[in-house]
Amino acid sequence: MFVSFDGIDGAGKSTQIEQFCAWLRQRGHEVVACRDPGSTPAGEAIRDLLLQRQNIAIGSTAEMLLYMAARSQLVDEVVRPALAAGKTIVSDRYLLANVVYQGHAGGVDVEQIWSVGQVATQGLMPDLAIVLDLPLAAATARLNRPLDRMERRGAEFLSRVRDGFLREAARQPDRVVVVDASGSIDEVQSEICRVVQRKFPGL
Amino acid sequence: MFVSFDGIDGAGKSTQIEQFCAWLRQRGHEVVACRDPGSTPAGEAIRDLLLQRQNIAIGSTAEMLLYMAARSQLVDEVVRPALAAGKTIVSDRYLLANVVYQGHAGGVDVEQIWSVGQVATQGLMPDLAIVLDLPLAAATARLNRPLDRMERRGAEFLSRVRDGFLREAARQPDRVVVVDASGSIDEVQSEICRVVQRKFPGL
Repeated sequence: MFVSFDGIDGAGKSTQIEQFCAWLRQRGHEVVACRDPGSTPAGEAIRDLLLQRQNIAIGSTAEMLLYMAARSQLVDEVVRPALAAGKTIVSDRYLLANVVYQGHAGGVDVEQIWSVGQVATQGLMPDLAIVLDLPLAAATARLNRPLDRMERRGAEFLSRVRDGFLREAARQPDRVVVVDASGSIDEVQSEICRVVQRKFPGL
Repeated sequence: MFVSFDGIDGAGKSTQIEQFCAWLRQRGHEVVACRDPGSTPAGEAIRDLLLQRQNIAIGSTAEMLLYMAARSQLVDEVVRPALAAGKTIVSDRYLLANVVYQGHAGGVDVEQIWSVGQVATQGLMPDLAIVLDLPLAAATARLNRPLDRMERRGAEFLSRVRDGFLREAARQPDRVVVVDASGSIDEVQSEICRVVQRKFPGL
C-alpha cells in the first residue's frame, strides 16, 4: 500500500502522518515513512537547494524538475524496495504537489508535469493521495516557524495552490481525496482512517 | 546563433570553445559562453551535486532530471535573454549530452529524455551541436586532472558514450556534426570554423 499526504503547509500534515503511521503499525503493517523531496542523500541535498537557499533564483520549470529528480531517487532507493518487501509507504507529499504548486499555481503546463512525472517515477503512483484542506488563514496561523521558499509566496499563490488541490481531487476522485483539516487532531485522524478503510476495505 | 559543443571529456572542448569564441568575436559577434550544467547560481549548485559529491547515490533518471533542471534555469536566465538581445550563445554541452550519457550509455529511454528536454528547454535547441570525437585512449591520455563522477565510469561506459554521439549525428546530420579531434589544436579549430560556415554561409 502506498499513501501520500498533501495540502498547503499548516494543514497539519506532519502530525497526521505520524498518527496515521502508528495506526497502521497497530494493524500489523510494516510502515516506511518518507518525505518528498527527501529521504535519500540526493533528495535531501535537492530539498535543501529548493527550500532553504532562498538567494538562488529557480524558475518554476527548473523547480519542478528538481523535485522530479529527488522523487526519481526516492522511488529507486526507498519506495520500490519497500513495496517489493511487502511494506507500506506513507509519503509526505509526492507528484501531486508538483502538479499543484508549479502547475496550477506556478503556471507550468499541468500535462507536461504529469508526463515528466511519469518518467521520474516510471509510473509508480500512490494508491491514494490524501489532501488535508484548510482555509488559508487557519493554515498560516498554525505555522509558527520561519517560512521556506514555497510558503513565502504569499496569499494569492497559496490560494491557487488550494484551488489546484481541490481541482485535482475532483478530476480523479478515486485517487485523490480531500479531508477537511479544520477539526481537532483526533477528528481529522478519524476521517483519514475512514477514507483509507473505504479504499482498502480489508484494512 | 546558438552553437553547443559536446563529446567525451579529453576531446579538447574547453580549448576549442575558447578559440571559437575569439574567432566569432573577431567577426563582430557578441558572444556569451556558458556551460551546461552551470552558468547560473542554481545550475552551479546542481553541477556540484552531480559531478563532485561522489558519495551520494544518484540513479540515471534522477541524474538526467538534475541536468534538465540546471538546463531549464540556464535557458531562462542566460540563453533566451542573450538570443533576444541578438547575441551568440556558445554552450559547453547541452541536451545532447543527456541523450547520450544517460540515454545511449546509461540505459534511460532516449525518447523520454528528448521529451523531458522539450519541457526543460521549452523547445530551445542549438542551431548546431558540434561533437568533438576522439578514440577513448587518446581522450583519457589528455585528461590530467582528478576525474569527476562521469569520467570515473570506465572504458565500457565511455565507449557507449562515444557510439551514442556518433549515432545521434547520423540520425540528425543537419543539427549534430562530428569533428575529428585527433589533430592539432589549430587543425581542429579550422575544421570547426569550416563546419560552422557551411551551416551559416553569411558568417
